Amino acid sequence: MSPQRHFEEELDRLKSRLVSMAGLAEEAVRLAVEALLRRDPVKAEEVIRRDKGIDDLEIEIDEAAIQLLALQQPMAKDLRFITMAMKISNDLERVGDHAVNVAEEVEFLLQSPPFPVLPELEEMVRITTEMLNDALDAFIRSDNNLARRVVVRDDRVDELHNNIFRILLTHMMEDPRRITGGMDLLLVSGNLERIADLATNVAEDVVFLVEGRTIKHHVEQRRAVSGT
Amino acid sequence: MSPQRHFEEELDRLKSRLVSMAGLAEEAVRLAVEALLRRDPVKAEEVIRRDKGIDDLEIEIDEAAIQLLALQQPMAKDLRFITMAMKISNDLERVGDHAVNVAEEVEFLLQSPPFPVLPELEEMVRITTEMLNDALDAFIRSDNNLARRVVVRDDRVDELHNNIFRILLTHMMEDPRRITGGMDLLLVSGNLERIADLATNVAEDVVFLVEGRTIKHHVEQRRAVSGT
Repeated sequence: MSPQRHFEEELDRLKSRLVSMAGLAEEAVRLAVEALLRRDPVKAEEVIRRDKGIDDLEIEIDEAAIQLLALQQPMAKDLRFITMAMKISNDLERVGDHAVNVAEEVEFLLQSPPFPVLPELEEMVRITTEMLNDALDAFIRSDNNLARRVVVRDDRVDELHNNIFRILLTHMMEDPRRITGGMDLLLVSGNLERIADLATNVAEDVVFLVEGRTIKHHVEQRRAVSGT
Repeated sequence: MSPQRHFEEELDRLKSRLVSMAGLAEEAVRLAVEALLRRDPVKAEEVIRRDKGIDDLEIEIDEAAIQLLALQQPMAKDLRFITMAMKISNDLERVGDHAVNVAEEVEFLLQSPPFPVLPELEEMVRITTEMLNDALDAFIRSDNNLARRVVVRDDRVDELHNNIFRILLTHMMEDPRRITGGMDLLLVSGNLERIADLATNVAEDVVFLVEGRTIKHHVEQRRAVSGT
């Protein structure tokens, strides 16, 4: 086999590992959210149990990427792809950790009376999982337009997180028996907000990969200015 | 100048940029915590204003790292250093974001009556800033033993975060006027816990850099097993 052909094959293997990792991270978030909404401790435990698979893939991806850089000395676009693969695997591992955090909250939530349904939390769950799904699709298909559409949705998630804070506060003030559940849900909302941030990071990396220039921190700057 | 000499110089410049970024991230956390403990909105605003400097350095470091990989085709230890530099810059940028989150909470905390002093929160602040400081020192001095001492401290921070949750809960149950402040402090505690996680990540990267093998996810596995 020619060295070039060998390189292409190794690059494809790196990509397919990243796709697997993305699938596991997305599934972890979906399962954790299901466990939360249905108060299902068995599903919650499954999220915690499966996290090792995501962690292992991060290590495999990093090692494969360093190997490719060392042996093949790739240029330009392949080099960007390999370095972004390492950054994306870092972010996906973090997504898995946040899914575990949400799953761990389920156990605590079961100890307090059911909290009233919050449409804002359900909207947050829906947008966040969509953002993650689209960011990974954008990566797989090298679709910078889809990636850019992920980035703009992050502001809505931040807004929902702030609204949920105020709604939980009102519930807790009205009925002190809701204080524990309210605090658990605040932590869940914080974890979802971070997952949306990480999906945004992945999407920004995809834009860099396809267009060769960074759009990072534009969102953060806006956020800092508006003080939200 | 010989290509080798030029490479060494560029590598030194990458290292010194990373040291600058680490200094800014550490300073941001220190300032945000000071603003929180002294209820000082001016310091809080300074953290938010300075965050752009950290963001800019992340982009510079990534570009310099990719440049070095493309032009110099480094091997073995230098290759590990350059790829870890990209991972560490990612983590430091996140540390800066968490410092901004803490600073933003200060503004909200000023709107509620002062919360009783929590020794647990002060211990958490102390350990977290020490971990960050030591992780960065370990990186600068390639000190894997110091890095390993950072990693083991993460469990204590997780424990403190859980204790703070329960302490805040008790305060809020006793006096509903403390509910708002309690929720703000819960978010602060969550941000500090994430900063400690990121310091742990950096320390794990330093161990990989020096020893050439990963110790990642051992901590996470223990955490998942103990269910904390």
